[in-house]
Amino acid sequence: MTRIRLGMVGGGNDAFIGGVHRIAARIDDRFELVAGALSSTPEKAQASGQALGLERIYDDFKQMAIREARLKNGIEAVSIVTPNHVHYAAAREFLKRGIHVICDKPLTSTLADAKKLVKAAEASDALFVLTHNYTGYPMVRQAREMIASGQIGNIRVVQVEYPQDWLTQNETFKQAEWRTDPARSGAGGSTGDIGTHAHNLACFVTGLRVESLAADLDAFVPGRQVDDNGHVMLRFEGGAKGMLWCSQVAPGNENALRVRVYGDKGGLEWAQEDPNYLWYTPFGEPKRLITRNGSGAGDAAGRVSRIPPGHPEGYLEGFANIYTEAANAIEARRAGTELDNAVMYPTIQDGLRGVQFIDACVRSSQRNAAWVTL
Amino acid sequence: MTRIRLGMVGGGNDAFIGGVHRIAARIDDRFELVAGALSSTPEKAQASGQALGLERIYDDFKQMAIREARLKNGIEAVSIVTPNHVHYAAAREFLKRGIHVICDKPLTSTLADAKKLVKAAEASDALFVLTHNYTGYPMVRQAREMIASGQIGNIRVVQVEYPQDWLTQNETFKQAEWRTDPARSGAGGSTGDIGTHAHNLACFVTGLRVESLAADLDAFVPGRQVDDNGHVMLRFEGGAKGMLWCSQVAPGNENALRVRVYGDKGGLEWAQEDPNYLWYTPFGEPKRLITRNGSGAGDAAGRVSRIPPGHPEGYLEGFANIYTEAANAIEARRAGTELDNAVMYPTIQDGLRGVQFIDACVRSSQRNAAWVTL
Amino acid sequence: MTRIRLGMVGGGNDAFIGGVHRIAARIDDRFELVAGALSSTPEKAQASGQALGLERIYDDFKQMAIREARLKNGIEAVSIVTPNHVHYAAAREFLKRGIHVICDKPLTSTLADAKKLVKAAEASDALFVLTHNYTGYPMVRQAREMIASGQIGNIRVVQVEYPQDWLTQNETFKQAEWRTDPARSGAGGSTGDIGTHAHNLACFVTGLRVESLAADLDAFVPGRQVDDNGHVMLRFEGGAKGMLWCSQVAPGNENALRVRVYGDKGGLEWAQEDPNYLWYTPFGEPKRLITRNGSGAGDAAGRVSRIPPGHPEGYLEGFANIYTEAANAIEARRAGTELDNAVMYPTIQDGLRGVQFIDACVRSSQRNAAWVTL
Amino acid sequence: MTRIRLGMVGGGNDAFIGGVHRIAARIDDRFELVAGALSSTPEKAQASGQALGLERIYDDFKQMAIREARLKNGIEAVSIVTPNHVHYAAAREFLKRGIHVICDKPLTSTLADAKKLVKAAEASDALFVLTHNYTGYPMVRQAREMIASGQIGNIRVVQVEYPQDWLTQNETFKQAEWRTDPARSGAGGSTGDIGTHAHNLACFVTGLRVESLAADLDAFVPGRQVDDNGHVMLRFEGGAKGMLWCSQVAPGNENALRVRVYGDKGGLEWAQEDPNYLWYTPFGEPKRLITRNGSGAGDAAGRVSRIPPGHPEGYLEGFANIYTEAANAIEARRAGTELDNAVMYPTIQDGLRGVQFIDACVRSSQRNAAWVTL
Repeated sequence: MTRIRLGMVGGGNDAFIGGVHRIAARIDDRFELVAGALSSTPEKAQASGQALGLERIYDDFKQMAIREARLKNGIEAVSIVTPNHVHYAAAREFLKRGIHVICDKPLTSTLADAKKLVKAAEASDALFVLTHNYTGYPMVRQAREMIASGQIGNIRVVQVEYPQDWLTQNETFKQAEWRTDPARSGAGGSTGDIGTHAHNLACFVTGLRVESLAADLDAFVPGRQVDDNGHVMLRFEGGAKGMLWCSQVAPGNENALRVRVYGDKGGLEWAQEDPNYLWYTPFGEPKRLITRNGSGAGDAAGRVSRIPPGHPEGYLEGFANIYTEAANAIEARRAGTELDNAVMYPTIQDGLRGVQFIDACVRSSQRNAAWVTL
Repeated sequence: MTRIRLGMVGGGNDAFIGGVHRIAARIDDRFELVAGALSSTPEKAQASGQALGLERIYDDFKQMAIREARLKNGIEAVSIVTPNHVHYAAAREFLKRGIHVICDKPLTSTLADAKKLVKAAEASDALFVLTHNYTGYPMVRQAREMIASGQIGNIRVVQVEYPQDWLTQNETFKQAEWRTDPARSGAGGSTGDIGTHAHNLACFVTGLRVESLAADLDAFVPGRQVDDNGHVMLRFEGGAKGMLWCSQVAPGNENALRVRVYGDKGGLEWAQEDPNYLWYTPFGEPKRLITRNGSGAGDAAGRVSRIPPGHPEGYLEGFANIYTEAANAIEARRAGTELDNAVMYPTIQDGLRGVQFIDACVRSSQRNAAWVTL
Repeated sequence: MTRIRLGMVGGGNDAFIGGVHRIAARIDDRFELVAGALSSTPEKAQASGQALGLERIYDDFKQMAIREARLKNGIEAVSIVTPNHVHYAAAREFLKRGIHVICDKPLTSTLADAKKLVKAAEASDALFVLTHNYTGYPMVRQAREMIASGQIGNIRVVQVEYPQDWLTQNETFKQAEWRTDPARSGAGGSTGDIGTHAHNLACFVTGLRVESLAADLDAFVPGRQVDDNGHVMLRFEGGAKGMLWCSQVAPGNENALRVRVYGDKGGLEWAQEDPNYLWYTPFGEPKRLITRNGSGAGDAAGRVSRIPPGHPEGYLEGFANIYTEAANAIEARRAGTELDNAVMYPTIQDGLRGVQFIDACVRSSQRNAAWVTL
Repeated sequence: MTRIRLGMVGGGNDAFIGGVHRIAARIDDRFELVAGALSSTPEKAQASGQALGLERIYDDFKQMAIREARLKNGIEAVSIVTPNHVHYAAAREFLKRGIHVICDKPLTSTLADAKKLVKAAEASDALFVLTHNYTGYPMVRQAREMIASGQIGNIRVVQVEYPQDWLTQNETFKQAEWRTDPARSGAGGSTGDIGTHAHNLACFVTGLRVESLAADLDAFVPGRQVDDNGHVMLRFEGGAKGMLWCSQVAPGNENALRVRVYGDKGGLEWAQEDPNYLWYTPFGEPKRLITRNGSGAGDAAGRVSRIPPGHPEGYLEGFANIYTEAANAIEARRAGTELDNAVMYPTIQDGLRGVQFIDACVRSSQRNAAWVTL
């Protein structure tokens, strides 16, 4: 089995998420990073590529797409890890040349771009994988499996939240800068950066779509141009209700993504900061702690776990699971075989729904938190 | 110091909250229960009164008010622990005769009654104490004190929730029965029974009032006539925003009242099920665990604590603190002295705001979760 | 049912444990405190008695015993809450006059006194109840019941610990003073004050006796005359093994009493600071959280619980359960009826074993932690 | 920077720890696995090597050492991940040929072998790195740094434990089989497999050595030939005392390694299953939660962290840190530069002390838990 040849757009020296993608791609040894256009600044692109020992270094993602598509052993897949506003243009170039795309979230910085990218993906033979990485956590898979099998009954209530505190004050460092600039991040601030994760997680775990929402967004830090706190009421198809809270101004919260789902037969709770635990209460019985690979954990979690229970896997392994699922799909394509049913990864449709979620939040908030449909 | 002579309305043999009030009144030995109209069923009133060894047993609260007011050593205060719809009529009888009232929440089952009761209280020399008992927990006092002193800065976000699971299915036992009957509980189900606690706690801790809210209420259990789940977005005076969730259909939650407050300088978190802990994060520093009577706990918590840190006080001691604060106020009245500034208890105004909260939730929900003012 | 007339020896104004006993006696309304010899200093005895509104105040416990025994409505029971070295002399006076004794732990300050007190109790018709209060916690009862019914199988390992930090430095306040004076506390410091609680809890929960132990005791604070840290290996009858750690010099621990029991079929864990929870793992299944009065809790816990699950009961309620069990026993004596099998309280034999435990720890430590039998 | 060429001995298809080593070596991209003698069964060695796409596959570690040493681009380092009894013979072959050794723990299965291996390492120019992987966790480094800088003062008490439950019953699968066979695992069962980790962790964090110990070991499962539970009292140089508990028969424990250290100025607590948290209590102040890369975390933790606080790193990243420290050391050798002071990894001396610990436990237990020196 030869490793999948991978390129990367974005992820230069001082970026955060590029390094995460590279580790994630490496953990299960299914990819080999060989080419990159790691920065829009040529010198930085060169320096960053050399630091990583890349075989082929580009100053520009379009050049990279054109050239790699022509090479005999050009890249088979590309990771796009730029700020949001670049996703569309970059992804399009690779999709149109049949190179699989693994793209960071949110899908794009505007809804118009998202729709165009969906078309581009539909017109392409290449795969599109969105790194809603939290769906890679084994116990998130476990929750989804339990819900799908009816263990908590009909879903009534979904509480999801993703508070952080790093933008409590007016920060000027790089990570903060582009994320609070609507030209680069899109119209949503916290809603786009982390609200989309919360929305995606709620939908992934329950298997339900949000039909409509009412959102009250705020930019609490003076001068901030995008929301840093979002309060959202959710109505799901089929009648379940929910609340979503995202915040970047909640001191004491690092990445406190948490989802709780309640049905007429039981409840489930999961928290990203302690990801190896899933709390399950069958109504009328004591709460149970299901651990990754431990007693009570099922197949869906087991197939994306690496080590025994009690040895925690973390964020990078969850992220790696998205890459490994992408590898499974790419290799099935290579081999012309059918993809195993158990393989799961966030698709471009999930990405579109994420951008629709941001768009709906912004529209609702502008109308005093009126209900809007997604 | 002689004990305050106390009567009780409601709280017969199979009631829950009456027994809680009696223990709460006893813990600090400031009251003596001497009279009661413990049930609206005469035989039950008699039997219940005898089981408690009461000196004077009544079949009817009005008789009790009339007679006790005339006795030389009649009751000085009365606890009203009936279903909600009886609060108004009962409280009025005692207030009009100068007998202090300690009343369970919500204040009344209708907003009209609440307003009338406020007038009755204003026209009376007697004190009115509402048992929003969670404000009696030492670490809730600690949180209030820290916020008042500016330790978390200007408040931006308040997240409060009170999920339970006991009404997940269609229950028919007594506690469930009257609480799900709008004629006795009022128009709010979960909003009235526990949402009011959450609302009161958020306001007590922050010192802020809710100006407007948007509520999406549901009765998930088929046939239920009042809400069993409430999702509410809050706007506080001064610009803070919040979310409130109350539910009686969330399996795995017993009495999971929890409040989190975030300002521009720090954050606080408290949970009723683990009430001796307060989590405090000064922005940019590690999270701290402040314990009741432990290092870092201040005067407001200390004056309502009885035992050393690490020896948990619980629900009954928190409840007792409301009784003891009532005793402090009653004794100051007796003695004609000024009440110590540190004494705090929920007032009839808090009760009115609680009924306004329920009313606003119901109105908002009927209008598709439109914003309504309190 | 008339309340049991209670006296108290010790527990004057600035004592800690006396106040705890008084609240504990009051919570379930089975006792009435009518007499006391609250201090060995006459003025303090008077002042303390008056502050409590006692009917009869004594300067001396012997006078009190003599006189109360002769009164028609003299006390039926006495609580002894003095420093340890007074327990024997005080208890003897009441036992010999047929007055029931409720005595704080450890039973006495010397093994010789303990043995004499056992004889005095055997010669008396009166009951002797030792306030090893942690056995009053509902979830401790739950653990005992589950173990007795075989739910964790044959016990192999028992880990028990009671760390505190209040004596980390050289304290001079009253509570610290007598507890670090071997003339008043006995030869054990931390072993006597808290190690005995840990020992008692381990034995109560498992139903096993410690056969022998090896103890390594230290007085880490310079100048301290009794141990402030104890490391003890335990061998139980039947082959189970255990470790016991008690410490008063472990910063970050308030009253972190905790017991863990492991058998060939499962495990149990309980911690005093979060006493409403019992963790139960049937081997090969997920860990379960059993809550007081919640799903999965049994009769033994239920009969000593007052309020619904999720409303925490605490230290005072656990302590009150000992008093209420004492009341059950005293009233059965009054009535000449047989005591309900479910009633449980620590006896003088438990007290003797506690003093034997201290004595064994001290002897073992003096012999370089050699094994000694109890 | 070219990757370090790595070989592996052991770690064939159905082994557990070999796969962990391979991921750990890959995470930071400093190694390239090129050769292996993955099994002592030739067919399995071949099949396993092919499955991994190794360039050079050997049936025998000695052949591998001989041949790789002669190759121009032979391996620079070898990972030894066999059962314990093979460590000595394998390591010796590589050390004597100047190939760096990264070896699993315990160092060897006998003390005699350990001493010989120390000599072999001293005689070699190659580095020897022992994968006491828990010392790679960032918050373990944090704890060590805080203790070294005096933040908890003079150490008095060290409580360390490593309970598991996987050998509660008589298991026959591969992982269980060799670990309970004294011929392959050595004389210690739980003491060797996990007790050594606990011992190493306590020493690493505190910077102290164990001078003597008293151990009470048991084989609770009938027929088991090595201990499955160990109770050990510790005496450290300088007067600190400790307890160590290791168990493989404690239901409800997966890999519950935990260390607590108490000094005269403060206390620290860390648990392997929640490794991103370090609890720190400065005496007399509230407990603080220091998180990996969060506020309050220092340089020692920061240099071995990859991602922001609140995104958990886990067991594999901790393990990877040992590999990356090894890479740092190997590259410094390559370059002839001095090794950065901050680099830390477990050495062969740590390995020797680990085997001495096992040996001391076994000797002490055979003598009824008498004190023995290490």
